[in-house]
Amino acid sequence: MRELEERICRDGIVEDAEVLKVDSFLNHQMDVELFGAMGREWARLFAGEGVNKILTIEASGIGIACVAAQQFGVPVVFAKKSRTKNIAGEVYHTDVPSFTHGGSSTVIVSKRFLGPADRLLLIDDFLANGAALEGLIDLARQAGAAVAGAGVAVEKAFQPGGARIRAGGVRVEALARIKSMSPGRIEFC
Amino acid sequence: MRELEERICRDGIVEDAEVLKVDSFLNHQMDVELFGAMGREWARLFAGEGVNKILTIEASGIGIACVAAQQFGVPVVFAKKSRTKNIAGEVYHTDVPSFTHGGSSTVIVSKRFLGPADRLLLIDDFLANGAALEGLIDLARQAGAAVAGAGVAVEKAFQPGGARIRAGGVRVEALARIKSMSPGRIEFC
Repeated sequence: MRELEERICRDGIVEDAEVLKVDSFLNHQMDVELFGAMGREWARLFAGEGVNKILTIEASGIGIACVAAQQFGVPVVFAKKSRTKNIAGEVYHTDVPSFTHGGSSTVIVSKRFLGPADRLLLIDDFLANGAALEGLIDLARQAGAAVAGAGVAVEKAFQPGGARIRAGGVRVEALARIKSMSPGRIEFC
Repeated sequence: MRELEERICRDGIVEDAEVLKVDSFLNHQMDVELFGAMGREWARLFAGEGVNKILTIEASGIGIACVAAQQFGVPVVFAKKSRTKNIAGEVYHTDVPSFTHGGSSTVIVSKRFLGPADRLLLIDDFLANGAALEGLIDLARQAGAAVAGAGVAVEKAFQPGGARIRAGGVRVEALARIKSMSPGRIEFC
């Protein structure tokens, strides 16, 4: 999506070959007009797919998902970070390794809000090693929900998550796919 | 706001005199159409206040804030939960006690995204003891930003936060104000 690529070139900060900061418009300060354009693009790409719910993950996916959901006319469910590993049987839970912070965190979704009748669009801000998206796919599988696909804002295509998830049969639509980057230079796919 | 009160009566679950679960439409599964109506109501209430940015707090405020921000045509900044107390001088930080989990957590906002030119609307899902909102007010104060007011979805008016924050001079617009509640019964102000 040209609008997102241009914004990344203008306001993104490449800190090194692996770290791209887009916190001025995507995941700390958030440009909701841009999110609207992103939502319209995913609605176009996934038209006719029968999406009836959007699933995202705390925290930076939530804003993008909620604005996008307006285009689909569906509710959003977000996987919540949980402090407790062992929770009574009311939730699905999965572990998501963090490459930014190290370690891993458990995220949960109430069983009341995901089930076999759901056809999900997964939404997140970044796709790099794929851990967050694979966590959402695992939650969907546990619930017996179908995954219509995944929409991510920025894919670092030089990291392995996108290729692995697509090889697993999930359609992934990234609105900006970065082939390589270094300070002052970003090359899109 | 009648639409929100009716939804609380229909889908909210009063667990005891203090705990209201609205996770089927407000803060786990999220009804973005309802959020749109809430955003329009805040835009009406705060019209002419010169709001140029919305400030909210991770995680359940983010979706509501992003949908509301579309009505104001302004960006959203969310205060992020931080794992580290001592951060280099690039962020404002404040401690927010948690009554749900116990303890407190530190939230941060980059100094690049809050400053004296800002006139903020604070948004959150719940107002009870007021800790989250007071954290946001503290961040605004540190940044020299003006606070035009606060919009909360649900105020538990029998808890002290709302009265204390209003007494401090901040306009608070709660779209549903609960006077008292017990399982099966909710009385609005």
